[in-house]
Amino acid sequence: MTAAETYYPQEPTAPSVTTSAVPGPQSLAAIEALGQHFDARCAYFMVDYDASNGNYIVDADGNTFLDLYAQIASIALGYNNPRLIALLDTPQMKNALVNRPASGNFPAKEFDATLQKVLKLAPKGQDRVWSGLSGADANELAIKAAFMYYAQKKRGGAATPFTDSELSSVMENQAPGSPSYAVLSFKRAFHGRLFASGSCTCSKPIHKLDMPSFDWPHAEYPAYKYPLDEAANAAANRVEDDRCLALVEHLITSWATPVAALLIEPIQSEGGDNHASAYFLQGLRDVTLKHGVVFIIDEVQTGLGATGKLWCHEHSAISPPPDLVTFSKKCQSAGYWFHDPAFVPNQPYRQFNTWCGDPARMLIFGAIGQEIQEQGLLAQVNRVGDYLFGKLLALQKLYPDSFINLRGKDRGTFIAWDLPTGAQRDSLLKLLKLNGCNVGGCSDKSVRLRPTLTFEEKHVDVFIACLEKSVQQLNA
Amino acid sequence: MTAAETYYPQEPTAPSVTTSAVPGPQSLAAIEALGQHFDARCAYFMVDYDASNGNYIVDADGNTFLDLYAQIASIALGYNNPRLIALLDTPQMKNALVNRPASGNFPAKEFDATLQKVLKLAPKGQDRVWSGLSGADANELAIKAAFMYYAQKKRGGAATPFTDSELSSVMENQAPGSPSYAVLSFKRAFHGRLFASGSCTCSKPIHKLDMPSFDWPHAEYPAYKYPLDEAANAAANRVEDDRCLALVEHLITSWATPVAALLIEPIQSEGGDNHASAYFLQGLRDVTLKHGVVFIIDEVQTGLGATGKLWCHEHSAISPPPDLVTFSKKCQSAGYWFHDPAFVPNQPYRQFNTWCGDPARMLIFGAIGQEIQEQGLLAQVNRVGDYLFGKLLALQKLYPDSFINLRGKDRGTFIAWDLPTGAQRDSLLKLLKLNGCNVGGCSDKSVRLRPTLTFEEKHVDVFIACLEKSVQQLNA
Repeated sequence: MTAAETYYPQEPTAPSVTTSAVPGPQSLAAIEALGQHFDARCAYFMVDYDASNGNYIVDADGNTFLDLYAQIASIALGYNNPRLIALLDTPQMKNALVNRPASGNFPAKEFDATLQKVLKLAPKGQDRVWSGLSGADANELAIKAAFMYYAQKKRGGAATPFTDSELSSVMENQAPGSPSYAVLSFKRAFHGRLFASGSCTCSKPIHKLDMPSFDWPHAEYPAYKYPLDEAANAAANRVEDDRCLALVEHLITSWATPVAALLIEPIQSEGGDNHASAYFLQGLRDVTLKHGVVFIIDEVQTGLGATGKLWCHEHSAISPPPDLVTFSKKCQSAGYWFHDPAFVPNQPYRQFNTWCGDPARMLIFGAIGQEIQEQGLLAQVNRVGDYLFGKLLALQKLYPDSFINLRGKDRGTFIAWDLPTGAQRDSLLKLLKLNGCNVGGCSDKSVRLRPTLTFEEKHVDVFIACLEKSVQQLNA
Repeated sequence: MTAAETYYPQEPTAPSVTTSAVPGPQSLAAIEALGQHFDARCAYFMVDYDASNGNYIVDADGNTFLDLYAQIASIALGYNNPRLIALLDTPQMKNALVNRPASGNFPAKEFDATLQKVLKLAPKGQDRVWSGLSGADANELAIKAAFMYYAQKKRGGAATPFTDSELSSVMENQAPGSPSYAVLSFKRAFHGRLFASGSCTCSKPIHKLDMPSFDWPHAEYPAYKYPLDEAANAAANRVEDDRCLALVEHLITSWATPVAALLIEPIQSEGGDNHASAYFLQGLRDVTLKHGVVFIIDEVQTGLGATGKLWCHEHSAISPPPDLVTFSKKCQSAGYWFHDPAFVPNQPYRQFNTWCGDPARMLIFGAIGQEIQEQGLLAQVNRVGDYLFGKLLALQKLYPDSFINLRGKDRGTFIAWDLPTGAQRDSLLKLLKLNGCNVGGCSDKSVRLRPTLTFEEKHVDVFIACLEKSVQQLNA
């Protein structure tokens, strides 16, 4: 019996869609009711979470889908995971929910034990954490930490007191107390939709229109030729890496305001599953060190195992390790990892808020991590990812026009490809749903696969059959 | 038997502090251990939440404090509330935690029922909600909604398409797609510590130093003479209101960039428990209407009953109601209320993120609201608040120098006063802890009372005795 069967003895063996359209009539009526007082225009369908199990999600009409989107890549273990259900009965969980602590001022006496479980999951080279509530929040908190670190270093160290001019100007939102430092991010990046994270995001206008933003630069993220392991592409991709690295350095040295931090996803997810090579990431580490820029890796979508490593950037042996690494989504918790104590601001209450994170979600994060380790889910992700990629390569041979730039080899189940047009991609996603698979898109014309870590070969077979049928219908 | 006795048959009858200092040795050791990988410098003490009950909080050394700070004003019903404990056993709660939904795309079929319970708690005049995760997040989301509304109106309405120039410039963080609109807030305000909320915050330099901010203005918040109901003060306070209103209008009409929104706390909390009169709030409503500025009220700290109304601004019959009202803290959930559908952006995915709030915390919010209504806790807060304020007035007569600007009459238990200096305030808070009461400060030299809504006359008596003893020791 495999890990997933242990978890999910009641998991369906196949999808089943009985409505002629998705969302079906029950979902449609519920979405309309919800829309009276909540923005429900983005709802795919209403979900019966009680009936959902493992890798299958059930909607309000009783349709059962194999789920390869998993709550926008945020469910690690599948629906109704027994270990997480059992966790709800613990006194720690009760306290974290009923007596939600302001953990900065009044931490629970068991808080350190909770943290220890979370810290076991830290990326190599990181041993400290600060916690937030969402991916955008994690990135904004990391950006704050980066600015404080940068300013402190410029000021002459943690012991150098703030000047009177800093203390007064900051209250007017003016320099020097509130300096015009910049964060360098990348075109097609997605880091969230608040104001600093939004200024770093650069994937679609709709995420940012009408919002004031900081005048921060976006460098070019390498646009590789796929497949990455084809010898013919290697030379061109290296040229692309060098071109983009030179541009990064040019922006750091020429931007009108000091670039305090560089923020990057190891695979741009919302922006189209664009990969960054180990060479490129090491190049960024080198150029940020050279110019004293804080190096932040955003692992909100790539983190916690789906790429076959616990953290995607661990596929590249970046040395020294990045300064800050942000997490959220599959972790259910959110925050940033770090290792240099200089990233703890020089005074208390500089990085602070009422809740300072969410111990309930940290407990869940810890339990997910334990399950990944005890069930060997990283090995499973690599094995199943290879199997899945092989099947997709076979489909690509049959339907090359529907599988452009297939990418994600050796990156677990974190796989994507393009359709010729956005309209065709949208049609394919719709057909996939009607045929029983819930799959998401990214960028303008990409399909992204984001199953849980408990996805197995048997799920791959179901998906591939559904996908081939859908592609045939698309091309019919 | 009163409501609180029903809840808390095991609640202690008196505080008990057995260590010679707070934090005691167990807390100190645990704080030091925690500090190895988490910023624990702000910890007052480590908490035994299992042992805490009702209005009493127990620390890791077994000290029992009457809690008038309640997790920085974020616990509504006291520790280990039976209704909230019972809620954890429901399938809805299990789903919201174990199968955390991306509620924008995949709402639970019971989501509308959850929302309905939350909407029952909306301020008068509001019937829609958008949800977030914290107070800062709520304010940032409301600010986003305000900017989109403002730009949409300026553009000629929701149907007017974005221009090519907007669509391209926003990707460069430039106008017109990313316009230089401003939010007007107030000196001494606290709205959070992210980048837009941080630009609105203006209480202490430590909250903002080294963070880039938007060039947004801070108007003056009225500085009243207390007590507010003393005839001799009424005229001066009206003059102050008019002065501050004129300044607001001046800033709106003269600021270098268009002021799209005005953000205000009905009582500035972190900034010193500064009250805004009904006249002032109505004046702001009038001036924002006159100039097409979105009027946002921040009820993060003042919301959910502690002032004797469910929402503090309901003490003032503002007409028409504010455009957006933000909430968090005692609600455990977070977000903003609104009523005008024009605040739903003209396209989906403009106000969106992975989780779009937290149904687990919305369920808790709904249950807290039911308890407030069924147990008549608003009436209790008013009754106990009057009793408490009367006792404080009596102490003020005995120790006038230690009870300066006593304020919060007719505002439930939302009460504060000043000490002559910050050092004396800090000493008083320390003595209060040693004598068995956990109390918070605000601004430089204020004491703020933030008990739960289940605080009773018997708790007042314990607190007043502890307070008098502490004041005597302070002045000894």
